[in-house]
Amino acid sequence: MVQELKAAKIFGGWNRRYKHKSDVLGCDMTFTVFYPPACESSPVPVLYFLSGLTCTDENVTTKSGIQRKAAEEGIAIIAPDTSPRGLKIEGDSDSWDFGEGAGFYLNATQPKWKQYRMYDYIIKELPSILKQFKELNIAEASITGHSMGGHGALTIGLKHPDLFKSISAFSPISNPISVPWGQKAFSGYLGDDKESWRQYDATELVKGYKGPSRKILIDVGTKDDFLENQLKPDVLAKAAPGTPVSVDLRLQDGYDHSYFFISTFIDDHVSHAAKALKSS
Amino acid sequence: MVQELKAAKIFGGWNRRYKHKSDVLGCDMTFTVFYPPACESSPVPVLYFLSGLTCTDENVTTKSGIQRKAAEEGIAIIAPDTSPRGLKIEGDSDSWDFGEGAGFYLNATQPKWKQYRMYDYIIKELPSILKQFKELNIAEASITGHSMGGHGALTIGLKHPDLFKSISAFSPISNPISVPWGQKAFSGYLGDDKESWRQYDATELVKGYKGPSRKILIDVGTKDDFLENQLKPDVLAKAAPGTPVSVDLRLQDGYDHSYFFISTFIDDHVSHAAKALKSS
Repeated sequence: MVQELKAAKIFGGWNRRYKHKSDVLGCDMTFTVFYPPACESSPVPVLYFLSGLTCTDENVTTKSGIQRKAAEEGIAIIAPDTSPRGLKIEGDSDSWDFGEGAGFYLNATQPKWKQYRMYDYIIKELPSILKQFKELNIAEASITGHSMGGHGALTIGLKHPDLFKSISAFSPISNPISVPWGQKAFSGYLGDDKESWRQYDATELVKGYKGPSRKILIDVGTKDDFLENQLKPDVLAKAAPGTPVSVDLRLQDGYDHSYFFISTFIDDHVSHAAKALKSS
Repeated sequence: MVQELKAAKIFGGWNRRYKHKSDVLGCDMTFTVFYPPACESSPVPVLYFLSGLTCTDENVTTKSGIQRKAAEEGIAIIAPDTSPRGLKIEGDSDSWDFGEGAGFYLNATQPKWKQYRMYDYIIKELPSILKQFKELNIAEASITGHSMGGHGALTIGLKHPDLFKSISAFSPISNPISVPWGQKAFSGYLGDDKESWRQYDATELVKGYKGPSRKILIDVGTKDDFLENQLKPDVLAKAAPGTPVSVDLRLQDGYDHSYFFISTFIDDHVSHAAKALKSS
């Protein structure tokens, strides 16, 4: 059962927030869908936007202005939450970069965190719900995200080229196995076996990628406080040559890590998805 | 002394939030300025955006997307807060529609609320600060706002056609003396003498307006829960014929009172201001 929590008209379309009981995560989850006006005549392709640390499904829908371009392109936006909520696991609310709001889009293997399965939630459960929505053509999907959600978009997109026709990211954690955010999350959720971490590392995935060619668009601000120590998009870009992946890494002069930055370049990411979805 | 609290680049310009000690209000106040790229070469005109009940200076700058069009038009956005803060007057935090976050852009006359002087703050103190900012040409200003801030924009704009070259509003409280929000605020801040209320009522001001001609743009959603009982823009529109004021009242089908609505039509309000500022 999916319950609509609220709805508001925007740019001729509708922003609708839903709540449902997740079997995969064992808790209630929220997500938001933006329906462009075009979905009134036929099902539209979708673009998933995965959000970053501390965020919910509402950050991108209230702060990025993504609906303007999505309405123009006739693409629905799917905004999931960033972790399970309300499980009351000891320590799940102690840090802003681990536990609630910090699911890292993986399937945890450590017993304590076994309900943290955002990876399965995003690729299986959420699509199974969305395919019941007749306005959406979820067989035509692209993926993008910000920071931790950029990591999610890159890793999920690279592991499932069948499900996602294009990939882009804002300020992604591009090589999590080598940075503090990633190491904290992966050791907590996956344990000490670092070999198991590589399946969720975008740079490692690019190195082994054998799918159809993918041109990944990445925007990062040069004044992003996390650029050097947590994001490392240059490491990802350097891994691409010789693989079917090409990375269009754009260093945006003077921008930071915020939604002010995202809002400035969101149109390009919607267009990047639209181009792939329309040609597929 | 004005202290910069934070700054972020957006759409090629800069969003900067400031804090200062207000002599008029007797407390620290924050405000935000968006500087368009054009201000790097010469001072730019400004558009004040007055926010609604419960808001601060940050709602419009994080949720409306106003910076995109303002960058394009070369107009700075001035976003003030909506009331004094931290005065600790008994009862100032009991209601969301009176006291903190609900200054109603007037000068209170009741002794208990004598520091609630947002009217003087907006027309005198804030401009006196802004005129020190060499990027801004505050002699060229327009005004807009939302809900309580729409009331503020209409009343202040109509009382000071010398200071504001154009006026527009989203979902304004257009006839506050006749609705619950206005009656509660005006009786609290101004006392029982209803004659004194009329100076802060946009409809009453239109009836007596003798300034230069003004074409006021007003957008309101037809699904705005407050339309009938609190906003009454139709009453304002009906007062205009025969005066130098004309009201372009646009009832936007299906939209509500939220920033989703504002973001959809914000470009038109920036353009409305730009047209007046460029021809003056």
